[in-house]
Amino acid sequence: MRDVAVVGVGMNRWGELWEKSHRRIWVEAALEAIADAGVDRVDAMYVGCMSGGLFTGQEHLGAMLADQLGMGPIPGTRVESACASGGLAFRQAYLAVASGAHDVVLASGVEKMTDVDGAAATYALSTAADQEYESFHGLTFPGLYAMMARVHMARYGTTDRQLAAVAVKNHRHGKQNPLAQYRDEVTLDQVLGATMVADPLTVLHCSPITDGAAAAVLVPLDMAKRLSAKPPVRVAASAHATDTLALHDRADLAWLASTARAAEAAYGQAKIGPGDLSFAEVHDCFTIAEVMVTEALGIADRGKGGGLAESGYTALGGKLPVNPSGGLKSKGHPVGATGVAQVREAVLQLRGEAGPRQVKDAKWGLTQNMGGTGASTVVHIFKRP
Amino acid sequence: MRDVAVVGVGMNRWGELWEKSHRRIWVEAALEAIADAGVDRVDAMYVGCMSGGLFTGQEHLGAMLADQLGMGPIPGTRVESACASGGLAFRQAYLAVASGAHDVVLASGVEKMTDVDGAAATYALSTAADQEYESFHGLTFPGLYAMMARVHMARYGTTDRQLAAVAVKNHRHGKQNPLAQYRDEVTLDQVLGATMVADPLTVLHCSPITDGAAAAVLVPLDMAKRLSAKPPVRVAASAHATDTLALHDRADLAWLASTARAAEAAYGQAKIGPGDLSFAEVHDCFTIAEVMVTEALGIADRGKGGGLAESGYTALGGKLPVNPSGGLKSKGHPVGATGVAQVREAVLQLRGEAGPRQVKDAKWGLTQNMGGTGASTVVHIFKRP
Repeated sequence: MRDVAVVGVGMNRWGELWEKSHRRIWVEAALEAIADAGVDRVDAMYVGCMSGGLFTGQEHLGAMLADQLGMGPIPGTRVESACASGGLAFRQAYLAVASGAHDVVLASGVEKMTDVDGAAATYALSTAADQEYESFHGLTFPGLYAMMARVHMARYGTTDRQLAAVAVKNHRHGKQNPLAQYRDEVTLDQVLGATMVADPLTVLHCSPITDGAAAAVLVPLDMAKRLSAKPPVRVAASAHATDTLALHDRADLAWLASTARAAEAAYGQAKIGPGDLSFAEVHDCFTIAEVMVTEALGIADRGKGGGLAESGYTALGGKLPVNPSGGLKSKGHPVGATGVAQVREAVLQLRGEAGPRQVKDAKWGLTQNMGGTGASTVVHIFKRP
Repeated sequence: MRDVAVVGVGMNRWGELWEKSHRRIWVEAALEAIADAGVDRVDAMYVGCMSGGLFTGQEHLGAMLADQLGMGPIPGTRVESACASGGLAFRQAYLAVASGAHDVVLASGVEKMTDVDGAAATYALSTAADQEYESFHGLTFPGLYAMMARVHMARYGTTDRQLAAVAVKNHRHGKQNPLAQYRDEVTLDQVLGATMVADPLTVLHCSPITDGAAAAVLVPLDMAKRLSAKPPVRVAASAHATDTLALHDRADLAWLASTARAAEAAYGQAKIGPGDLSFAEVHDCFTIAEVMVTEALGIADRGKGGGLAESGYTALGGKLPVNPSGGLKSKGHPVGATGVAQVREAVLQLRGEAGPRQVKDAKWGLTQNMGGTGASTVVHIFKRP
């Protein structure tokens, strides 16, 4: 397998983009990534999207987006793994370059979630859970994560304030991200006192419904050195693992086994451990998710993720900043795009282009993108040029 | 890139499987492929499915199916390219093995289409067309292919009887396939006199709505020689190309450019031409599709596909049998599964296991799987052990 580098990234301003279509949002991000890479061609493209069918009445996105970019007849492949669709599209693009099948590959993700009403969006999102055993019975994602939070609290003593600290931190980070959906700080009291969605998760514990897209251009590392419009960021590891789809089948509701498994494989490929990371972009769809992810990644000890978040260790300026971009919580969560936006943040950080949210002297960055309640996880590790 | 072989295939009886769930159908085909291969492990799996969301309210299929097979935490990836989803899942599995990323990979496809009513199924299928410019205005797939047929008839003199000959042939073939949805022969007069769907296409020019799944196990050719439960069939070529999503953007409505492009690449990889093929399994979602596909593959001269079908050249016993399995027309068309079922037929034929529909002395087989009105095409070429 060939070494692979990311040479370009793009993303549009995320939010409720009622004036822009699904395809338009994607094209904006794709063109920016191509311009950033300085390439004059794309040989193949991958797009992550969770539910083009339920959100916009449009499937067949690989072909559509190659066409919209004016790049047909290049192969265009749509990949889906619920909220990990973007990370998985990036991984397939990585494999396409690493294998030698293609040289210049566009990885991308997109979701247009606000063309349907809230109930329809909640239904569409519920298709990431087990339709026969969870969603059919009325379970929604806030409900599922609330159960995970309750187990974590009961077993480890995790507190409401610790969970809320994740939201406070990520909104503080997101304030520095001009493309984030919500660039507003929130206080602990605001998070704790907000409208309850699924106890213990208030609405400010939850990531929002978002329209948005992100894209990245991957090439073989050898070619990257010749291109060099921007310094190439090396993909040091790529891993993907699954877990049971339904929460009730898990051995431990308070442990993200797919994340732990993918992280273990990724650390092995990169030959580093969590202590070597300069920062991590992780899947904080709910505050409890970030707490559990930091544990599964080995950033926090098991059961200690809440305390770590509260301590400032994972804040910008702390020992290992988590979600310097603002995370899903503040940046927004267009489900198919999230995994690729994490890659964009990692690339900006490792190039030293992250502006006011720059992690000092960043050398190694990790991205973790997760589907459903952790039934699938994709982890990538990136290295500074 | 490593040489890759198919060592196992599986498929269940296709039809209106109201008593079986989406996941159950898939597991049946997957287990059969694994048993046929004689492998004791699967390292990764790919599943093609067009619209789990609209047909069954279930996305996140990569994780779900790995889980249902009891194979989590292996990576499970869902791939979508409308009716070419299965072929594209097979191609991603091929790339995963060829690249060295994984050794034993399960490629699969599934669609459960009969849990919704006809109008909902028609809507779900319309998401393969251009939502903004075609389906929004009421165009359905029979309507789109009828327009392509009318252009072909006007330009080349293709007749209703020539198109109907495709249906007659494929039903005759499918009668010999115990897993086909419709094992009934039809006459020219029955096809011509059936209920009109979209002039000139009667209902017997159209493939049906089907529940079904298919699966295949791929390994490196070197490993295949050591396994040898069944003789390994080599993947001699894999190619994927796109075209405009909307029909009105095409330079020529009577020409399938994505198929021509993918075929050209595949013939180049396999170092053969259409004259070397022993048989082809192609995407006859409508009779006109098979006519146009045989032209784009170089089996028929441009404009002569109708005459070729009528002549018997593409029938079992003819010079180059097309769709010995019965094709989509008779075997059924569970959209995400079709491309993998084509691979199964190719493997059975090249092993000499196709029974009464066996193509004599089959050496090279081609599969062509297409999304929408040809906005995406995946072509594979297989070689006898």
